[in-house]
Amino acid sequence: MIPAADSPMTSFVNRQQFTIDWGHCDPAGIVFNSRFFEFFDRGTWALFEAALGVRPPDLAGAFGIVGIPLVDASARFLAPARFGDAVELTTQVSEFRRSSFDVLHRLLVRGALAVEGRETRVWATRDATDPSKIKSQPIPPEVAARFRVD
Amino acid sequence: MIPAADSPMTSFVNRQQFTIDWGHCDPAGIVFNSRFFEFFDRGTWALFEAALGVRPPDLAGAFGIVGIPLVDASARFLAPARFGDAVELTTQVSEFRRSSFDVLHRLLVRGALAVEGRETRVWATRDATDPSKIKSQPIPPEVAARFRVD
Amino acid sequence: MIPAADSPMTSFVNRQQFTIDWGHCDPAGIVFNSRFFEFFDRGTWALFEAALGVRPPDLAGAFGIVGIPLVDASARFLAPARFGDAVELTTQVSEFRRSSFDVLHRLLVRGALAVEGRETRVWATRDATDPSKIKSQPIPPEVAARFRVD
Amino acid sequence: MIPAADSPMTSFVNRQQFTIDWGHCDPAGIVFNSRFFEFFDRGTWALFEAALGVRPPDLAGAFGIVGIPLVDASARFLAPARFGDAVELTTQVSEFRRSSFDVLHRLLVRGALAVEGRETRVWATRDATDPSKIKSQPIPPEVAARFRVD
Repeated sequence: MIPAADSPMTSFVNRQQFTIDWGHCDPAGIVFNSRFFEFFDRGTWALFEAALGVRPPDLAGAFGIVGIPLVDASARFLAPARFGDAVELTTQVSEFRRSSFDVLHRLLVRGALAVEGRETRVWATRDATDPSKIKSQPIPPEVAARFRVD
Repeated sequence: MIPAADSPMTSFVNRQQFTIDWGHCDPAGIVFNSRFFEFFDRGTWALFEAALGVRPPDLAGAFGIVGIPLVDASARFLAPARFGDAVELTTQVSEFRRSSFDVLHRLLVRGALAVEGRETRVWATRDATDPSKIKSQPIPPEVAARFRVD
Repeated sequence: MIPAADSPMTSFVNRQQFTIDWGHCDPAGIVFNSRFFEFFDRGTWALFEAALGVRPPDLAGAFGIVGIPLVDASARFLAPARFGDAVELTTQVSEFRRSSFDVLHRLLVRGALAVEGRETRVWATRDATDPSKIKSQPIPPEVAARFRVD
Repeated sequence: MIPAADSPMTSFVNRQQFTIDWGHCDPAGIVFNSRFFEFFDRGTWALFEAALGVRPPDLAGAFGIVGIPLVDASARFLAPARFGDAVELTTQVSEFRRSSFDVLHRLLVRGALAVEGRETRVWATRDATDPSKIKSQPIPPEVAARFRVD
């Protein structure tokens, strides 16, 4: 179901299984779009925990960053997900750049791709000259290395 | 931690373990109150699935009802739950009445009661004289029996 | 529609008008219960802004508190609110005690009471002996006075 | 602040002003990403109401469609929005195609563009051969014409 060509196969993939709740769904009986972006955010935290072995609330402290803020998010809705559907969300980093990275999310309903999401996030520290601001920082090579699967 | 006196011990208890998400939390770093009511709703559906063996989206059809609408909900917030906390939600029916019932939810953080929730719901069918309305209906004894633990 | 007997008539009432969104509603076509608790929280902040003349993000700083955390919340659902409904939320403090207070919310759909909510909140400061904890503090009389209508 | 070059100036623009709620914000003190997609959805319904003079819940019935389902959504986060910020959301159709259209959302904080969102939606009817499915339908020219500003 998932086209191999589009898949960064050498990148660690996190998988989450969960069930669609009544409260996730709208009057059309399908998951309301904003909920998928909640799922994606949770998927990214879970991926980082699985790859780095650091609990999400400890990530910032462990790497001297303020976090991995989102600068871009998108989703393509291919098929609906409904109340009670058992879904699987796969999450992986599709590209690490110098100080930002892309995360690819695929939500599968009964094995078929229903929603594809993308996030761009930055590796961010507090700006030394203005602590009210944040600035991107080079991603440590040892961090990116933990997401590679050989 | 859970006072036995208040616990309807003969009622089936459903347990869910999950982790508090970043998106559940507010600027105080703790779960925003409305999220607990999402957790309670999910807990009730899961309890009914476990007790009755019927998937949530099939519940209405299986029993000829429109659903189990909420008429009253409340929560007492005893201690905060934070991002990354592994929590357990226990859910049980504390009382079945003729056509309504109470659900008791307890959210535990590190084994300690953090939030206690209560829902009152009705066993509802479509009103025969006005299909735009719903009306409560006697709960079948065989339904209530499935929530009893001897 | 609102029974006068139950109404603390000498307490300042804040009114908000808004429209029910598609994303507020569930597969039954009515507002999902957790959304009302979002509405109530917004109503309380708006009430405090109207009564005290302090913008919500400045409330803590203006009074030397960490906030007005919620310790108890409840709602009675009397009639549904639906997508597109123009609703009015009235919010008022129903009782000030030494260091806690109750907020009463009434959501009206076409002038009729649809949901009644209650919150109990505390006037909270950081605990001097353990800054990771908060503790309740006496509500300044001049604060409570601002909510009185003569 | 808004670059004119990117702006489909001949398209009707709907404007909504609102305030960022406590419950919209995450532990970083800024609006959690999924909330913006709720704002965009609300913006699209409000735009259609303003352009067509049809209340959102009546849209489907008025045009014989099942709705305007979302097939693609994205957002660029340029600057944070915080609790208490007074924001303006401008919404307009940036392109009508045969049976789908793009909606452009701009969220302004203190007059500066903070978030830019895009939605692609389809004009959808129930599939005559399989009523469980929906299919796209040509957008009536008189509908598209109502979004044009001369």
